[in-house]
This record gives sequence, structure tokens and C-alpha cells, in this order.
Amino acid sequence: MSHYDKLMAHYQSIHHFNHAQAMLGWDAAANMPVGGNDARSNAMAELSVHVHRLSTQPQLADWFESAQQETLTDAQSASLREMKRQWQDATLLPEDLVQAQSKAGSKCEHAWRTQRQENDWQGFAKNWQEVVALSKEEASIRASALGTTPYDAMLDKFEPGTSSAQLDGLFDEVKTWLPELIEKALAKQASEPILLPQGSYPADTQKALGLEVMKLLQFDFDHGRLDQSVHPFCGGVPSDVRITTRYDEQDFVQALMGIVHETGHARYEQGLPKAFAGLPVGEARSMGIHESQSLFFEMQVGRSQAFIEHLSRLSQQAFQAQQDPVFAEDNLYKLYTRVQKGFIRVDADELTYPAHVILRYEIERDLINGVIHYQDVPELWDAKMQASLGLTTKDNFKDGCMQDIHWTDGAFGYFPSYTLGAMYAAQYKTKMTQTVDIDAAIRSGDLSPIFQWLSDHIWSQASLYSTDELVTRATGEVLNAAHFRKHLEGRYL
Amino acid sequence: MSHYDKLMAHYQSIHHFNHAQAMLGWDAAANMPVGGNDARSNAMAELSVHVHRLSTQPQLADWFESAQQETLTDAQSASLREMKRQWQDATLLPEDLVQAQSKAGSKCEHAWRTQRQENDWQGFAKNWQEVVALSKEEASIRASALGTTPYDAMLDKFEPGTSSAQLDGLFDEVKTWLPELIEKALAKQASEPILLPQGSYPADTQKALGLEVMKLLQFDFDHGRLDQSVHPFCGGVPSDVRITTRYDEQDFVQALMGIVHETGHARYEQGLPKAFAGLPVGEARSMGIHESQSLFFEMQVGRSQAFIEHLSRLSQQAFQAQQDPVFAEDNLYKLYTRVQKGFIRVDADELTYPAHVILRYEIERDLINGVIHYQDVPELWDAKMQASLGLTTKDNFKDGCMQDIHWTDGAFGYFPSYTLGAMYAAQYKTKMTQTVDIDAAIRSGDLSPIFQWLSDHIWSQASLYSTDELVTRATGEVLNAAHFRKHLEGRYL
Ligand SMILES: [Zn+2]
Ligand SMILES: [Zn+2]
Repeated sequence: MSHYDKLMAHYQSIHHFNHAQAMLGWDAAANMPVGGNDARSNAMAELSVHVHRLSTQPQLADWFESAQQETLTDAQSASLREMKRQWQDATLLPEDLVQAQSKAGSKCEHAWRTQRQENDWQGFAKNWQEVVALSKEEASIRASALGTTPYDAMLDKFEPGTSSAQLDGLFDEVKTWLPELIEKALAKQASEPILLPQGSYPADTQKALGLEVMKLLQFDFDHGRLDQSVHPFCGGVPSDVRITTRYDEQDFVQALMGIVHETGHARYEQGLPKAFAGLPVGEARSMGIHESQSLFFEMQVGRSQAFIEHLSRLSQQAFQAQQDPVFAEDNLYKLYTRVQKGFIRVDADELTYPAHVILRYEIERDLINGVIHYQDVPELWDAKMQASLGLTTKDNFKDGCMQDIHWTDGAFGYFPSYTLGAMYAAQYKTKMTQTVDIDAAIRSGDLSPIFQWLSDHIWSQASLYSTDELVTRATGEVLNAAHFRKHLEGRYL
Repeated sequence: MSHYDKLMAHYQSIHHFNHAQAMLGWDAAANMPVGGNDARSNAMAELSVHVHRLSTQPQLADWFESAQQETLTDAQSASLREMKRQWQDATLLPEDLVQAQSKAGSKCEHAWRTQRQENDWQGFAKNWQEVVALSKEEASIRASALGTTPYDAMLDKFEPGTSSAQLDGLFDEVKTWLPELIEKALAKQASEPILLPQGSYPADTQKALGLEVMKLLQFDFDHGRLDQSVHPFCGGVPSDVRITTRYDEQDFVQALMGIVHETGHARYEQGLPKAFAGLPVGEARSMGIHESQSLFFEMQVGRSQAFIEHLSRLSQQAFQAQQDPVFAEDNLYKLYTRVQKGFIRVDADELTYPAHVILRYEIERDLINGVIHYQDVPELWDAKMQASLGLTTKDNFKDGCMQDIHWTDGAFGYFPSYTLGAMYAAQYKTKMTQTVDIDAAIRSGDLSPIFQWLSDHIWSQASLYSTDELVTRATGEVLNAAHFRKHLEGRYL
């Protein structure tokens, strides 16, 4: 058996435990009664320790060394590279740092759940100080290994190969046109009448409607399910993808588009190549690329006029409300493209969302690089919020820097993925238009040509290439914010 | 750290992987889409190999030896005994036998699914021959270790400490009075009019009704759920018990009582002592004792006149059918105590069920002990079926010896548990009557005194005692078929 084959068997074995972990996590969110939590946490912690042990076994160093001398196909080389990347990631940090982070992160996140409601920045800062310090320690170790700045080393966990130099370029450009575009969109929409959903939209009916929409989006129900959880997500494994949503019986708008979004994540997972199942190279490329699929589904397909026609027809049928003007195409389109300046990222619309992300990026970059101090964050947040959306968060921590869960347990480097995803999606759209009549495909109800393009260029490519290569092979260029601008101007001007 | 403590930590760690395994198994039955099967099977096989590896680690032999020298409380001694029992069981059989059994069992079971429908005994026998041979090999290894007959060694897997000498005594006695009792019950019921369910009973309504009945039976919904699967079962872990049922929209009778039955299994699991959570001594005592709980719920509580009053009221409410005579107390009671001779064990009523079990017991005992040959089974089945229920299964293999899944993958020794459970349940009832007004408790709708007795005497005792000790402590005597006879005569004469 070659060392490459040994490594392959080893990583497939790890994958089986990750399969268990993924399903236990999904179950905990979608099914588990409250009293099951302690035993579940213990079981998942044990699996996690076991996976870490498998991922750091001493013989792996030799196997990687030997495998690199073997004659490998291009795909095998890529596979080896991705196994090695996961191995390096698993072995990089000292055990005691990982444990200290896990402990400090849990403590901070747990307390945050009440501190946020109480707007208690001082209380939060006490715990968070430790989380930030440990993340900086992690970043410094990673930076030494990768030869990058500390923040770039954290970014690498979620967006391998992406640098803050690249992000600075992209985001600075967005900042030159976004504020004005938001103002223009608001001015345009100010005079347009809109009907808000009012009434009762039973969860069962919303689910039935969601399933219809998933069929239209060719979700493979032989390899996945739709369920409910407090925080919607896409989980499970590629052969059995579990997406969730949450229904508000007063309003169907968010859950319905949430299902479109998660279906995008799901189809990426379902479309990953079977030949590399269970191997690192067979996994999704990055968080940003994952989000590029969900946001292609949500923003490029879901909020298009053509798709809204389907949503209008299907929701009228589901709620048996053919005459209800809320469900009229025109009104639904307005509901799904309404621009509003607000404090909260997760409630933000497509147009203001990048402002929320860029603000967070700039703060976390400077924080991890030691340019600013954790105590500076509220003031910086307020200043940047005023500059980008004209809103002040002075003394309003709960709607400011305390609103997101990400930083509470040290997930620095994650936020950029959201806007990278939106930008990638816009760029695919530009390229896809050259060979696919997207609008006609959506209108016909058979969206196959769109999905075929995504499958050929993204899903089937998994982690065979670096992000830049993947995107260049798909669109002919690396990420370029111009496509995003064109898309937004087309929709909102 | 004492060796007892080391062992305890080790078995708790094994339990975490078993937790994962239990939940993956439940999910596969209750949720998993068809395309998820291959990856799931691989993940579960990997977990299973890992648990086997942990259960047979070489240092355990030393640890057990050393722990036996340590000063232990009675409970710790019992705990050590049960860990050792699981360890001996795990280390007893050679790897290659276990693998050969797994392979032959899967093959035989898989082919059986179509062979049964086609009444193809010859085809089945070809695969089954191997399963029987391997089970006999297993039995012979176990028998040498335990110093018992081969069949008793197989029985020990499901009913530790129970022997076929004991079963012969019990079952032979049952055979002296059961046939006549069946005839008398049939004669009595022949003249009684009965209304069969007809119409449509939506699955959603049946589920809502099932949940009401589970509340009455004090199922702890903070530590468990009700779901659907093709074959109803009780799975999960004690802190999160997952029961399932299957709804026939033409008939509510079976699903409803199935929920009562599984709730009995569930409350045993939910009632196991927290102090021994994750340890072998904290697990259910045996299959027969588990069945004694489900059958206490089903036969002693569920089919009592007093409980049928609740079922009548609750089902009238659920189906909004206050006037429907099918749901009348008297008719429901008849539906739930109807006696019918039939070929199929799983469709059998309370009274004829033991005949099905005793027949299987006698055949598998003689088969594993080498008294008969696998080819003799159809003829023996026919002869015993004629003797006990007056039905012939000549050339009708599919409704004869090919009807059950158990033997297809070598689960010899399991069948007696069903009737042992029914007998234990009747014996508890006799004893419980001395201190609890069972009928009044059921009628009042607060069944707590009944559950308190079961909790005190069975649930909280887990595997602290041998089965005989457990039952003697609970009822003052070892298993005695007289209580079962008295119960059946009381209900059916
Ligand atoms: Zn997403
Ligand atoms: Zn049962």
C-alpha cells in the first residue's frame, strides 16, 4: 500500500467520525429535547478529542514525507495537499492553547447571551479580553508557520490563500460607491408603496411551500431533508444534507428566502464529486465559496424578477390566497429588494449588508494585528457605523459590537466570507450570462442550465484548486468587485 | 487513580461512542433519506470497530485483575462485575468468526427480504445453513467459557443467568393450560359483537393522540421524543429516549397500543439511575426485563378496563367522534382483548403470543444444541403449530419458519425474552396489588403510584442485581408462571 493510499484510508476513517459528529450536531439543533444536552455535549466532546487524536498521529509526518516522493496524478497531488493542510492545521496549536480557547470561548459566549440583552459591555469585555488575547496567541503561532500577518493567518482558516491586502483592495473599492448607491436606492424606494405581510402563515403551510421551492431548485430529496431549528443552517454530510429554517407565523418572507439560501449551500454539498467522498480534497473550497453558492441561489436567482414570479404563484397556491395583493409579483419583488439602514447585520438587506461586513473586517483585522485594543472596539464601531450608514451606536453595545456571536468564541476571520460570497456570485452571473440565458431558464421553471454551470465550474471542483484558480477557471479572472457593483446598480438604481 | 476508576472512565468513554451509534441508528430509521444509506453504514461500521477496539484493549485484563483487589462498595462491585461481563463478551469470540457472522448474517437477511415473499425455503436454506453453522460455532465457544450447554450460552447474551432448564419448566407448565384457555376464550368471544375501525384516521391526529397517551403515562418529554419508522422501536440514550411508531391511516388500534408499549421501554430507560449513567451497571438488566416494562405498560395497564376508559375518551376527542361506536369503551376493550389464532407472531394477541414464542424457543434450543438439523425446521414448525394452535404451515414457509427476521442473522436466544417479559409483568402486578390500588390509580388519571413501584423495584435497580435477585427483591420469589396464568384467566375467562 502506498503512503498516499494509507493517508487516504486514514482521512476516510476520520471522515466517518466527522459524519457522526455532523449528524449529532444537526440532531442537537433540530430534534434534541432540552434534557439530552449534557450527555450529547459529552459524546460530541469525546468524538472531537478522538478526531483530534487521529488527525495528529505521529506517523502522519512520515507518511506525508513519503507520499510526496510517490508518483501521483494531479488530482492525487491536490488531495495530498489538502490532507496536509488539515494535518498542519491540526498539529499547529499546542493542546493547552486549544483547551484554554475552548474554555474561554464557551464562558464568554454563554455569558454574552444575557450580557447582550442587558447591554453590558463592561461585563462582556471582562470575558472577551481573554478570548481576544488567546486568539492573538493563536494568530501569532499561525503567522509564524505561514509567514503572514497575524490576521491573514486567521483568515486562512476560513479562506485559504486570501490575504487582507486583497480584501483591502476589494473593500476599499466598494466603499467608494456603496454609500451613494444606498442613498439613491432609498430615495427611489421612498415613493413606492409596499404591502407588508399581515395575518397568519401557519408553519406547516410555510414548510410545504418551502419544499415546493426546493423542488424548483432541484434539491435532491434522496440525499437530504428540510427541518426546523432556532438558527437556520446547512449541516449533515454530502450524501445526506440537512438544511433547517425557522418559521415566523406572522411573516413568511424571511423563512422562504432562507430556504432558498440554504438550498444553495445544500446543492454545493450534494454536488461535490463522489470520487473524492470522505477526503479533504472532496470538501467545499472555503467559507466564501460556500457562501457564493447560497448567495447565488438567494441573490442572483431567488430575488430575480423571474424567480419572484414563481414565488408569487407558489405562495398564492400554498396559502390559498390568489387575491391577496401581498403575494402579487410586484409586491413580493419589492419585499425582497427593500433597502433599509439598520443596526443589525442578520436583518440587513442585500445592499447594506456589505457595509456591516466591511466594518467588522476592518475592526477584527486591526484587533488581531495589534493595531487597536479590545477596549477601542465600541468607539470604532460607532465611528464606522456613522460613516457607512449614518447610524450611531454610542452606548448601544447590544446593537453594536455585541450583536454577533462570532467574536464571542474567537471566530476572527470569518466575517469577510459573507461579502466575498456575494461578490463571487455576481462574478459567476456575469460569466454565466455568456453561455446561459439565465432569465429564460428561471422563467421556464427548468433551471438545469444554471445548475449545470455551477456544477461544472464549482461543485464538481471541490478543493482541487486554490480559490483564485477555481474562480479564474470559472470566470477568466480573479475576484473583481466591478461585477458586484454592476449587479447592485442593475437591481437598485 | 484506582483501577476501578480507570475502568469507569474507560467504559464511560465507550458509552460516548455508543451514544453516537444509538443516535445514528435512530436517525437512519426515523429520518434518513434513502441516498444517505451507504455513507451512514460506513460511519456506523467504523464506530462499531472503534468500540470493539476500545472494549478489547490489552490493558483491560490487568485493570480487571487489579480492580478486584481494591476495596469496593457493593454498588462498585456490581459495577465491576457488569464491566467485566461486557469485556468477557467482547473478547470471547475470534475477530474472524465475528466478521464471518456479520457477512453471512447480512447476506442471509438481505436475500430473505425477497425470499420470504416468494416462499423460497430452498433459496433461504442455502444462506441460512451458514448462519446456523457459525452460530453453533459461537455457541460452542461461549459454552466452553460459561460451562453451559451451547443454547444456554446464547441465551446468556440476552438473559444473563437464565437457563433452558428454567425455561423448560416455565414453558412446559404454560403448555399444560394455554391451549384450553385459548379455546375457552375463543368460544366466549364468538358470540360477542365487535365493531372494527373503518374510515380514515389521519397520521397527524394519531400522533397527537399518541402524545396525549404518553403524557398520561408520564413519558418525560424533556428526555425523549416520539417519531415514525417502518419498524417501531425504542432507541436513543437514557437522557434522550427516542421511541417510534408506524401509523396505518385505515386503523388506529395497533399504533396506539404500540405507543403504550414503547413508552414502557422508554420509561425504564428514562428511569435508570443517573449515578451510574454511562456505565454497564447503569444499563437495563436484560431483554426480558426490558420487555417486562413494555408489557407491563401494554398488558397490565394499557389493556385494562380502567385504561381503556382513558383511550376511549382521548380518541373520541382526538378524532372528534364522540358518537362513533367504534370508540365506545366496551368496543375498544373488545378490540384490545380479541383472541385470534393466526400464523404471524407480530400480529398475535396477548393470549396466543406465548404459543408462538414457545414453538420458536423449542426449535432454536434443539437447533443450537445439535439435536436437530436446520433442514428439520419447517416440518417441526408445522407439527408444533398444529399442536399448539391447530394450524398447518406445510409448504407455507413464508408464514412459518421464514416469517421473523431474528434467525436470519443469527439472533438465537432472543425469542424467550418476549414471554419472559409478559410473565414478569404479571408477577409484578400480583405483588404491586398488595400496596397499590392499581385500578384506582389508573381511573384517577394519576398513575404515579404504579410508576413509583416500578421505579423503586426495577428502573432504579438497573443491573445492580442478577435477574433472579432483582425479581426476588421486587416480588419475593423468582419467576413463577402461576401469576401469568391467573392474569390471563382473569382477563379471558
Ligand atoms: Zn449561508
Ligand atoms: Zn418491546
